[in-house]
Amino acid sequence: MRYKLTLEYDGTGILGWQRQLDGPSAQENLETAIARFLGRTPLNREEYAAYKESKENDSSRHTDTFVAGRTDAGVHALAQVAHFDLDAEIDPFRLLQGLNHHLRSNDIAMSVLKAEKVSNDFHARFSAVGRGYVYKILNRRAFPALLKNRVWWVPCPLDVEKMREAASYLLGNHDFTSFRAAACQAKSPVRTLDRLDIVQTGEEIDFIVEARSFLHHQVRNMVGTLKMVGCGQIPPHDMVKILEAKDRRCSGPNAPSCGLYLNKVVY
Amino acid sequence: MRYKLTLEYDGTGILGWQRQLDGPSAQENLETAIARFLGRTPLNREEYAAYKESKENDSSRHTDTFVAGRTDAGVHALAQVAHFDLDAEIDPFRLLQGLNHHLRSNDIAMSVLKAEKVSNDFHARFSAVGRGYVYKILNRRAFPALLKNRVWWVPCPLDVEKMREAASYLLGNHDFTSFRAAACQAKSPVRTLDRLDIVQTGEEIDFIVEARSFLHHQVRNMVGTLKMVGCGQIPPHDMVKILEAKDRRCSGPNAPSCGLYLNKVVY
Repeated sequence: MRYKLTLEYDGTGILGWQRQLDGPSAQENLETAIARFLGRTPLNREEYAAYKESKENDSSRHTDTFVAGRTDAGVHALAQVAHFDLDAEIDPFRLLQGLNHHLRSNDIAMSVLKAEKVSNDFHARFSAVGRGYVYKILNRRAFPALLKNRVWWVPCPLDVEKMREAASYLLGNHDFTSFRAAACQAKSPVRTLDRLDIVQTGEEIDFIVEARSFLHHQVRNMVGTLKMVGCGQIPPHDMVKILEAKDRRCSGPNAPSCGLYLNKVVY
Repeated sequence: MRYKLTLEYDGTGILGWQRQLDGPSAQENLETAIARFLGRTPLNREEYAAYKESKENDSSRHTDTFVAGRTDAGVHALAQVAHFDLDAEIDPFRLLQGLNHHLRSNDIAMSVLKAEKVSNDFHARFSAVGRGYVYKILNRRAFPALLKNRVWWVPCPLDVEKMREAASYLLGNHDFTSFRAAACQAKSPVRTLDRLDIVQTGEEIDFIVEARSFLHHQVRNMVGTLKMVGCGQIPPHDMVKILEAKDRRCSGPNAPSCGLYLNKVVY
């Protein structure tokens, strides 16, 4: 039986989605809650590493989870999607309530928004046909007290119209090499950016981006470059040259992870 | 020289605005930053208690601050107003930047949004002619991961229309004894409630309240009672009886402090 979860989590203080030997992760947090829900003793980090190395895939010992987008350290999720298989048939509502009961007692803030039974050919990552992120900037003189770790604080006034013009050159099908992390494992640097809207609400500026998939760090590199346009350091039309250069050194710095939210996965 | 500050702070983990001997407070945090800005050694909790007891009011040793509304433990501020006097004339922008420099290195999240020079007859508390609060409820099945300590999580579905009807009976001039904390020090329980709007945005329900002043716990007691109306435990029109009873035992429980934000002070 395959189950699909929609998850909200705070990326602060974790090493990202993926399990790591040297610290907490969203995946570890979820898999620990699943183990507790099933009445098992959760694997600790060393036991999990040994289990993975043995390649035994013993579903009576551990339930593996798969996710739509592996978020980096500090990146938040408003609607991450994960799937996993269980031998038993469980009422999805009971699953949601049971997992949240165990998640609530953890230090890491994660909550199951929705639990569904899905067919066995559903895959959280490979079945996804669209992903959406929001990147939040707080644009004001004073640093954030209430939105600490929830936004990128930019004290210099940003010109939203200029950023919108620059953003328009990024829309559509391009080679995004200039906005790609060195560690990116994608085969092709070509992506189709379907949406890049910039919405200003008071002191907050939200960048709403959608594509079938993104390169590693693509959203944060685009926002880091757009912020330079907003500050007047890059003319909007230079975005065309930056794309054409196909060189990461031509774009702006990677915007901090704390402003980024995975907020939509389309199947 | 008198200075007025507009402050944002996170109420999580502090004992409220007012200084306490047994833990951190917003007032202590601000006064420590002012002392550092002036190049002084800040008074610790014991030294402050001794200073207050001595009634020396020595402005060369300590700068006293006064605030528009003394928030309780856990209550947040989006725009608290404080004033204090300094012997020297300081450029307000330098004051804002200097205080924020010292506040940023503190564990308690507080930020100065605005600093102004004001006349000597201005008083943050006594000159205020209006106060506004927002109370935030997150109304959904799953507990909040990203809005932890920022909202009151209410899993049962709330009927907003019923809450709006109940709220309408609270508007205007009433004896609010039924919504007043036992510890309330106000001379009269009569207040005029100028606004109580309920705004629903997705899963969030905001209660926007305004009055010249409020009784202790009045907003949280009103919201706690309105939530019972929203859950169907109290018919909306019973709000009239609850007001008329002038008895705290007739209204609902005090809503948790983490959903409350002081967001406006009018002079």
